[in-house]
Amino acid sequence: MGKQTKFLLDEKEMPKSWYNIQADLPQPLPPVLHPGTGKPITPDDLAPLFPMELIKQEVSTQRWIEIPEEVQDIYHLWRPSPLFRAHRLEKALDTPAKIFYKYEGVSPAGSHKPNTAIAQAYYNKKEGITRIATETGAGQWGSSLALAGAFFDIKIKVYMVAISYQQKPYRRLMMETWGAECVSSPSVDTQAGRAMLEKDPNCPGSLGLAISEAVEDAATHDDTHYSLGSVLNHVLLHQTIIGLESKKQMEMTGEYPDIIVGCIGGGSNFAGMFLPFIKDKIEGKKPNLRIINVEPMAAPTVTKGVYTYDFGDTAKLTPIIKMYTLGHGFMPEPIHAGGLRYHGMSPIISHLYNLGLVEARAEHQIGTFKAGIRFARTEGIISAPETNHAIKVVIDEALKCKESGESKNILLTHSGHGHFDMGAYEAYLLGKLKDYAYPKEKIAEALKDLPKVK
Amino acid sequence: MGKQTKFLLDEKEMPKSWYNIQADLPQPLPPVLHPGTGKPITPDDLAPLFPMELIKQEVSTQRWIEIPEEVQDIYHLWRPSPLFRAHRLEKALDTPAKIFYKYEGVSPAGSHKPNTAIAQAYYNKKEGITRIATETGAGQWGSSLALAGAFFDIKIKVYMVAISYQQKPYRRLMMETWGAECVSSPSVDTQAGRAMLEKDPNCPGSLGLAISEAVEDAATHDDTHYSLGSVLNHVLLHQTIIGLESKKQMEMTGEYPDIIVGCIGGGSNFAGMFLPFIKDKIEGKKPNLRIINVEPMAAPTVTKGVYTYDFGDTAKLTPIIKMYTLGHGFMPEPIHAGGLRYHGMSPIISHLYNLGLVEARAEHQIGTFKAGIRFARTEGIISAPETNHAIKVVIDEALKCKESGESKNILLTHSGHGHFDMGAYEAYLLGKLKDYAYPKEKIAEALKDLPKVK
Repeated sequence: MGKQTKFLLDEKEMPKSWYNIQADLPQPLPPVLHPGTGKPITPDDLAPLFPMELIKQEVSTQRWIEIPEEVQDIYHLWRPSPLFRAHRLEKALDTPAKIFYKYEGVSPAGSHKPNTAIAQAYYNKKEGITRIATETGAGQWGSSLALAGAFFDIKIKVYMVAISYQQKPYRRLMMETWGAECVSSPSVDTQAGRAMLEKDPNCPGSLGLAISEAVEDAATHDDTHYSLGSVLNHVLLHQTIIGLESKKQMEMTGEYPDIIVGCIGGGSNFAGMFLPFIKDKIEGKKPNLRIINVEPMAAPTVTKGVYTYDFGDTAKLTPIIKMYTLGHGFMPEPIHAGGLRYHGMSPIISHLYNLGLVEARAEHQIGTFKAGIRFARTEGIISAPETNHAIKVVIDEALKCKESGESKNILLTHSGHGHFDMGAYEAYLLGKLKDYAYPKEKIAEALKDLPKVK
Repeated sequence: MGKQTKFLLDEKEMPKSWYNIQADLPQPLPPVLHPGTGKPITPDDLAPLFPMELIKQEVSTQRWIEIPEEVQDIYHLWRPSPLFRAHRLEKALDTPAKIFYKYEGVSPAGSHKPNTAIAQAYYNKKEGITRIATETGAGQWGSSLALAGAFFDIKIKVYMVAISYQQKPYRRLMMETWGAECVSSPSVDTQAGRAMLEKDPNCPGSLGLAISEAVEDAATHDDTHYSLGSVLNHVLLHQTIIGLESKKQMEMTGEYPDIIVGCIGGGSNFAGMFLPFIKDKIEGKKPNLRIINVEPMAAPTVTKGVYTYDFGDTAKLTPIIKMYTLGHGFMPEPIHAGGLRYHGMSPIISHLYNLGLVEARAEHQIGTFKAGIRFARTEGIISAPETNHAIKVVIDEALKCKESGESKNILLTHSGHGHFDMGAYEAYLLGKLKDYAYPKEKIAEALKDLPKVK
């Protein structure tokens, strides 16, 4: 072939600032409300949980926010991450489409999550915090914060959703290797956990519940802050390094994407990619740019949920945010894409979807693994189950191009490798994987318990 | 810090030829002998096992051997691999030494092994071969050949050493994800395997035995060739891409290594690094360059074995080669560095050690994991147990520099990540890992059964 496969940036070319979409939204985000008073939340309300710098970033409308030098130095351990042209996949699909993928699996934790874990640990350290509590689904976030804790000498306590804790023992060991403590959620360490275990000792857990446990831990320990790996504005902000690098790399390829695809659980990895691009769409420079969010049919937040105010967690400890939600009590089936098993969606993606600026699609897991195997056997990389959701849609779109004869540029946000998900691949290869029907009744039930907001 | 961490080469800068040390050896390698006749082996003797191009490479004295374009194209999926300056480890050790590491864990299989797997699959494909049998220890080699098989549409059958098959189920699943078949060795699929199972149904296996099985498989199937992941000259040749890239990258740093360190099982990853550098030592340009081979105390081939003719496998099916050996019947204890559990050593490293051009050191496993954890908590990467052997010695040498005040340049050959070895990290973290005493008697016993060579 002799064609270029990999588009690399030198670390000197790494963007020095994150991009804040709040500077360019056609309409501002709805306010976040206090869970007790129902009134807009103040910085002081959040101070027991987050360092002030992150609280400021959460509401900032400043377009560019500088990446601290200490954070840049650590980013350099794996960033800028590579952008690939998927020549081999294109050939296997016999498509005229050009497929590109930005690969975040090169980080030590194997996903995009360290982009914000490092930043959050840095700001916490600067404020004198010595311990952080957090939750994790598939374990990608917990292991990333564990890594960040090792770098900044901060103790990390991770509440890991029970089903993932059982399915992915090696993710837990990764956290322990970096010095963190990890427990199965629901756990006996918090009131929220104990209450759930009393109700259902075999509860598979959910991200919503694990968040309750971590928030309670932070609220009840003086030395401890809370940290969230997705959903919030400052998390998406830190992830924009993905899209900012990709814009430079797409320029190197001589192309601009027609379609950008990514998977969404809380939404941070994909928003991190598309926010710097959607700026061009909002400004009218790229009106035809399509942005496709891919979620699991087992937790179809955007495609089947409602856009309303809800809690971020099961125990109603978090602020009330306006977002697409399946109801904070929704307990998704144990699909292998643990990072996508969340009832809510980041306010920014919810807002953009509501404005009609982005699309969404829900996929069953068997089809996503089939796509993942195809990717592995052509491009080499064994992808995380979450990422396989995006790969499925990229392949579908590339095959549509084959039918129509169009040579579109498709950009895949590849959020990470599947080295800790081989049990899921085993289930697929043995034909033991199952698809769960769209959980219509469970969603309807969970949506009955929305908070009352004036 | 603001100092450069990562030294990258563009894929256009990737070397276009492998370096063949046989052009520059002060004395030629001793001949390889036929197991039946005891006479020097001929290309025709090897033709049932290997494609002719590889047989030619095995004995070639041509200095540069061109990398086929199809192989280069696939290399570009992860090559050139990055070279890092370990600023954070240096700081933690408070050493004046400069530590660099070349990281091969960026390949889809997570190690250096695809460098030769891709090349070997290519030459087999060109010769019309549709199936390849091989053995694997830790699973790094088997998964790499599985990957290569997926790329070239060749069926792969892997005999995986039983103890690793049990310890590392995810490595097997990786092979299956890429479409290969993997069985535990000793297996019931070969005569050599059945004979061993009869003797010891719980036999933990060894690389020597798994090689017997794979060679027998290839010899008894018309459509099948055999492939070896280390030891042989052509394997080391393909791995020189590591050292050739590193030379360019060390130039970018403005430094030249004083000490190069790597782990050795069959020797290919480390030889791949140091052969392009040892050329400078042989030519007298860098007379003080130190090259330290690190092996496990449980299989101390170079430091405690003898330099003599021996079989490469347990069942005496392979040619007889002159090398450091513990005896082909030596069955090492089940240390977690499965890739280092081999009784022999590549003829090239054996020859260079015998000539006094390289050094060797044997390490117990607990110390290597301690070093690996230190590396993980400073540089982020969780390393393979094999690699931890090299990291241990790098840290020791850096601490010696701290004592002496010398600012030496230490170059670590980082052969791969430990994502499929978390069980070993668990054993270490729980304090359950044990060190095995230098197996003096077992070696003496195994050395009684050397082949008679005139």
